[in-house]
Amino acid sequence: MAVRSAAMRCLKLTIAYDGTNYVGWQVQPNGISIQQKIEEAIELITGVKTRLIASGRTDSGVHALAQVANFHSETELTCDTIRKAIDANTPWDISILNVAEAPGDFHAIRKAVRKTYRYVFQDGRITDPLNLRFAWRIMQTLNADAMHAGGQHLCGEHDFFSYAAKDFQAKTSVRTIEELTVKRISTSPFGRVELQVTANGFLHHMVRNIAGTLMEIGLGRKPIDWPRDVLAARHRKAAGMTAPPEGLFLVKVDYEGSDIV
Amino acid sequence: MAVRSAAMRCLKLTIAYDGTNYVGWQVQPNGISIQQKIEEAIELITGVKTRLIASGRTDSGVHALAQVANFHSETELTCDTIRKAIDANTPWDISILNVAEAPGDFHAIRKAVRKTYRYVFQDGRITDPLNLRFAWRIMQTLNADAMHAGGQHLCGEHDFFSYAAKDFQAKTSVRTIEELTVKRISTSPFGRVELQVTANGFLHHMVRNIAGTLMEIGLGRKPIDWPRDVLAARHRKAAGMTAPPEGLFLVKVDYEGSDIV
Repeated sequence: MAVRSAAMRCLKLTIAYDGTNYVGWQVQPNGISIQQKIEEAIELITGVKTRLIASGRTDSGVHALAQVANFHSETELTCDTIRKAIDANTPWDISILNVAEAPGDFHAIRKAVRKTYRYVFQDGRITDPLNLRFAWRIMQTLNADAMHAGGQHLCGEHDFFSYAAKDFQAKTSVRTIEELTVKRISTSPFGRVELQVTANGFLHHMVRNIAGTLMEIGLGRKPIDWPRDVLAARHRKAAGMTAPPEGLFLVKVDYEGSDIV
Repeated sequence: MAVRSAAMRCLKLTIAYDGTNYVGWQVQPNGISIQQKIEEAIELITGVKTRLIASGRTDSGVHALAQVANFHSETELTCDTIRKAIDANTPWDISILNVAEAPGDFHAIRKAVRKTYRYVFQDGRITDPLNLRFAWRIMQTLNADAMHAGGQHLCGEHDFFSYAAKDFQAKTSVRTIEELTVKRISTSPFGRVELQVTANGFLHHMVRNIAGTLMEIGLGRKPIDWPRDVLAARHRKAAGMTAPPEGLFLVKVDYEGSDIV
């Protein structure tokens, strides 16, 4: 006797979140994760326990403007209904921007070809009290032009081992940075400098270690060529400090074929 | 025997704050106010219990980009030292932007000639999870042009009794709105509409009642001429709802003579 099976769909989610109150994207035993809150909402709607695949983890306190994740489901609800339903069943600091039908072989990590992160510095003597959840507070004034110049040493294909976290476990630490810019966004009343970096992939803590390294140049404590020397050292202690998570935003994940919305 | 008396100075403070965690500017028996936190810091620094005079109260949950207050003190510290010391002794969500020497007769309320407030709407079907502390979330899409057109009926000298709070107690409800604009700031991924209004003075809840009234026009529930009819009614119930405090920002207070920095 044949059992009629509903069609299995692959659904792609685009998600924004304020990471302040979470242990990060990934499910952890020690606290609430963004993944867990969304998986719980999906189970509530579809009645099926479902595992989400994201483009990558974000650490505790890191934010996202457009994280991408996917899951497989036999639900017959429309994409817009699924979006509204997940959105309504997740906390206020997680927002489902879009749900779209994806090809059956879509995979949010494996199919990602490029990612963009932003790191925000709130610099200078005056504190912006409306932005402390979303920036690294640096009391001095940063030289954004020097940081930009120093950052250009990191563009192209390099072994970023010196910029990886101590718990480095990936197969290779070679990545290609396609673009890296540092720009001053404002000076008054509040200083704001933004680092934006696009690469074919990132090692754990890579953006935060780049931010901590460029910060040293911005304060004039290290020369503009220092990031090149740090690369060459191939040793974690060669780089600057790991910048705190609250300044970091996952901005965008690109996939091959612009038809995958 | 003559006692040498130190010179009494009049000091003008410019202050930014995230009002989310406070009962408002003014000292209240039922919770922590911004005024109280700053007065405690001043007492810590000068050793003297001091009363601050602000340009006006802001309600619980209302924010300020540049609230102005003044106090009198015999302290011999420089303005910059006072700024840093108050800033260091107030919580993270209160920031002292500037401390300046003012003429002895400066008075933050009485000498104010003009104030500017901003009201932020976060509209449309997609929620901005990074901005919920700082905007009124409206799930539909607002027509900002219609709101702007409707708001022009309020420009000039009018009796704003219909736009005052129920507890109205001022001598007169006549005020002059010098400028009122409503602009769409963004549509994607998050909708954002800003109302900005400059007047020679504001009644309690006046900006929030204007925001609640213009919102009805933005949703197409009321015609563009409605704010004029509300003015004419001279009755609180004629206006729209009081918009919630989290969307409101005190942007600027102007004083006569640009020499008072």
